[in-house]
Amino acid sequence: MSKTIEFFWDPASTYSYLAATQIEALARRCGAEVHWKPFLLGKVFEATGNKMPAALPAKGKYLFRDARMWAKFYGVPFRFPKLFPLNSVLASRACLAAADQGKGVEFSLALLKAYWAEGQDPSQPEVVSAIAESVGLDGAALLAATQEPAVKEALRANTEAAIQRGAFGAPTFYVDDQMFWGNDRLNLLEAYLKGQIGIDEQP
Amino acid sequence: MSKTIEFFWDPASTYSYLAATQIEALARRCGAEVHWKPFLLGKVFEATGNKMPAALPAKGKYLFRDARMWAKFYGVPFRFPKLFPLNSVLASRACLAAADQGKGVEFSLALLKAYWAEGQDPSQPEVVSAIAESVGLDGAALLAATQEPAVKEALRANTEAAIQRGAFGAPTFYVDDQMFWGNDRLNLLEAYLKGQIGIDEQP
Repeated sequence: MSKTIEFFWDPASTYSYLAATQIEALARRCGAEVHWKPFLLGKVFEATGNKMPAALPAKGKYLFRDARMWAKFYGVPFRFPKLFPLNSVLASRACLAAADQGKGVEFSLALLKAYWAEGQDPSQPEVVSAIAESVGLDGAALLAATQEPAVKEALRANTEAAIQRGAFGAPTFYVDDQMFWGNDRLNLLEAYLKGQIGIDEQP
Repeated sequence: MSKTIEFFWDPASTYSYLAATQIEALARRCGAEVHWKPFLLGKVFEATGNKMPAALPAKGKYLFRDARMWAKFYGVPFRFPKLFPLNSVLASRACLAAADQGKGVEFSLALLKAYWAEGQDPSQPEVVSAIAESVGLDGAALLAATQEPAVKEALRANTEAAIQRGAFGAPTFYVDDQMFWGNDRLNLLEAYLKGQIGIDEQP
């Protein structure tokens, strides 16, 4: 029986980018498939009382270097965006619309790279359109699709579902009801999928 | 030239326990040595504005399961203490005093296990004394040493040094000036010590 990883992520989240670069290969190693679920991290923070890591000065300073070390560790490009934080609503809707057109993963990875490694601004329609074209989608059609009620509603629904299931940050992964929070839990996610660290409920 | 890992930790911190079970083996793999530096995480939180993770309800609920998965991942015993949080001042001073007597690591690991796996309360002098005896130290002498001004001052100095160097949580590791925060950064720490992820300053 195929296992499913639900991957809740926000284009505006550094660690969502880092995890996104790894998750498909991880899934292949585990015989699992990934359901990419963009959500609005800002709404998750509002609902749970959590804050972005950089809200704490000492943490912000560290995480800047930390992200660069993870990128080196993974061997992926990374350049901290001049435009930060990103308003990711348009970008997230575009990822959902791209998925409807069968290119969700490819477009999402291209968009993440554009923002997290290439200094582009995917809050701008023309940037989103160009990324769409780069993966073989019709840029104008994709932009139009981001304004569809069903796409807007899908983003809200992903966000609400994650909050209801206990998410408080990004990325957040689920395998059935088991939650994993953070790029730094990919090792546990993989071990869990391989049956190495299932836990019993404690009395 | 031998490399040094400075390991700042607090007996009251779940992830300090988890990291402590791994750090000596990691150091051996890297040809490094570990300097164990107990510090007062509560003071670090006060100084930086950080809070214990469980202060956020959604995070607290998750981290309880997370810690158990890490313990399974590492193959180490873990049972969340009934007494939580722990006032760890006496325990931390005892670890410093044990180090003065040449048994710092052995005593610290025994104390962490007593609290994080065996339901013991190392805020109590008789418990600290019994742990000392279990590793071949004189319990009464170790308790007496915890009241020495030099031991008290060493704990304050570790705490102050960590804050000055940018720490905001526990465990925190340094290799020279490079900081690593968290049990979940042991992979980066190891890669860094092996020369795989050194980073240049970004312009």
